[in-house]
Amino acid sequence: MKINSKIKNYSVEMIDNLLERKDKIFSSLRYRRLFYLVDENFFSIYEKKIKEFIGEDFFYVIPATEQNKSYFKLADYYRVLVGNNFMRSDILVTFGGGILQDISGFIASTLYRGIKWIFFPTTLLAQADSCIGSKTSINFEDSKNLIGTFYPPDFIYIDSGFCRTLTEDYFNSGLGEIIKFHLMSDSKGYTLLKEYLSSSDLRDEGLLKKIILLTLGIKRSYFESDEFDSGRRNLLNYGHCFGHALESASNFKVCHGEAVIVGMGFANLLSLKRGIITKEKYDEFERIFRKHYPRFDLSTISVDALIGYLKRDKKRIGQDLTMILCEDIGKQIKADDIKESEIKDTFKEFAAKYKEN
Amino acid sequence: MKINSKIKNYSVEMIDNLLERKDKIFSSLRYRRLFYLVDENFFSIYEKKIKEFIGEDFFYVIPATEQNKSYFKLADYYRVLVGNNFMRSDILVTFGGGILQDISGFIASTLYRGIKWIFFPTTLLAQADSCIGSKTSINFEDSKNLIGTFYPPDFIYIDSGFCRTLTEDYFNSGLGEIIKFHLMSDSKGYTLLKEYLSSSDLRDEGLLKKIILLTLGIKRSYFESDEFDSGRRNLLNYGHCFGHALESASNFKVCHGEAVIVGMGFANLLSLKRGIITKEKYDEFERIFRKHYPRFDLSTISVDALIGYLKRDKKRIGQDLTMILCEDIGKQIKADDIKESEIKDTFKEFAAKYKEN
Repeated sequence: MKINSKIKNYSVEMIDNLLERKDKIFSSLRYRRLFYLVDENFFSIYEKKIKEFIGEDFFYVIPATEQNKSYFKLADYYRVLVGNNFMRSDILVTFGGGILQDISGFIASTLYRGIKWIFFPTTLLAQADSCIGSKTSINFEDSKNLIGTFYPPDFIYIDSGFCRTLTEDYFNSGLGEIIKFHLMSDSKGYTLLKEYLSSSDLRDEGLLKKIILLTLGIKRSYFESDEFDSGRRNLLNYGHCFGHALESASNFKVCHGEAVIVGMGFANLLSLKRGIITKEKYDEFERIFRKHYPRFDLSTISVDALIGYLKRDKKRIGQDLTMILCEDIGKQIKADDIKESEIKDTFKEFAAKYKEN
Repeated sequence: MKINSKIKNYSVEMIDNLLERKDKIFSSLRYRRLFYLVDENFFSIYEKKIKEFIGEDFFYVIPATEQNKSYFKLADYYRVLVGNNFMRSDILVTFGGGILQDISGFIASTLYRGIKWIFFPTTLLAQADSCIGSKTSINFEDSKNLIGTFYPPDFIYIDSGFCRTLTEDYFNSGLGEIIKFHLMSDSKGYTLLKEYLSSSDLRDEGLLKKIILLTLGIKRSYFESDEFDSGRRNLLNYGHCFGHALESASNFKVCHGEAVIVGMGFANLLSLKRGIITKEKYDEFERIFRKHYPRFDLSTISVDALIGYLKRDKKRIGQDLTMILCEDIGKQIKADDIKESEIKDTFKEFAAKYKEN
């Protein structure tokens, strides 16, 4: 799959047994040395194979925590790369999920004003969503993703087999985005989603390969015309306005993709209360979400904390709050006029329903 | 003057009495609030007028030091902007020279993944050179400009009248780049340069306006086809390889533009020793440089320190050192095979000649 970008065009390729295909990936590239950043959890599972893959090149293992993608923590990685003599003719290579991608992408876009970067996404979320679209995001003090750039990898290779070893949480996190994208697609996409969700083994490599490519295709259609996120791409924030606030307010106990599912549920309830979505559609989508809502006690979250985080939303443009609402499959709408009182009322109702879940 | 950029197209306009023209500049723009970053020295000179210009909007005064454009120091500015509720619909506005531009440009490119930014360059260097080309550069620990992005302002307004109040050092610093660009132009450009340099008042606003526009035009011709600096744009580094090393090795006692003049002199001597430039041309250019070389005792600089800094050059691609050499007006050549011994021999000779200066 080819992706057009104003920064640089790039490609995504599905690949089986990636850890045994180093030659195929690097043989056509010119470079001096490779520098690997590797997710700690992935490294611990595949240690022997990864070490063989990396060989004599430099590698650095990073635990995928929000703290590790903070502005100040990034200094360590710049220091490690430059201290080991990273040069412009070298390539940064990343094994990891969204956090490793954010760290690597921000560094790749800013070190020497941009270096070559190859990304091997290892989580379902990164494979089916974040790997394309060229966003990088860094936390600043207590603001999640306050700082960032637009910078895609030069190449992305996806081995859906890596999803076998994901924890339940991580797998569901990717599912959250897959569901979101297919609700933003069309009736055909929605049917394919329901087929996939009803299969007996959601981690089947063949099924995953198909649904990942479909999801990336939907995402591409949203951002290729609006890479720098000034219009249509905003809609991809469906589930994310409330989702991000919930992640922060829960101290990241709720993981990203699951927070997005909760966020879609919340946005849909607000849409229902505004009369934007029919009760029938609302119930239909809610049934899908319910199967994938995380076990989490929403009553531990203060609505004022949520509103505080919603106020920091990058997408917000005026005094009111912003949220992507939902009318139907493929019909999401940006609302910039959400009142705090509306959030409070909706949250009360939402939390009560969530408890019954 | 219009500039095409892959990030966003933008424009540069010459404007007289900028501090009295706020309406003209902002009347056609949509925004919520303006946030100003202002160079401390400029602020102290124009304080009353600037305060009138800014009115009720937010401003923050920053001394233009290398320390203040460091990765860690930038955290203060993010904190100040976000703490004062900077939103996506706000505009960052900068009064200052290259350092304020670097600080503002890096912040503008990374805060919320890119915000609107208007730049009023206040030094000759920023007016005639750095304001276009979309590079931003941040120091990391002891590495100058290690980190950066490509991100142009949305609008640039140049009031050449600001050059009246520049110190001798700052004014010469801009001259250094003006000389460099015209040596990279053609025989017509070279003639215009000599005319300008022979005028009795180099700070005459009318003359400055003309030479600034000419210089920006030459620069544009080098980078519009190579914004991300992978080819032809490299040549603009003429005078900068050695120049940057000298700035660092002198602990920034030699300012940028003056270091560039010394750097061109050094590159030309190396070119002469390699037989790339004729003795006649060499002498001709050297006469121009000599009038603008800073008073500085080169013997206080260790050649090993210089080589150490040359090794950190972002443009370097192999084991040898990189330098832009000069054959003639508009004929600069990138050499990637400069040996340490060549630097040492050339520096010995150069320092001896420089002393006679």
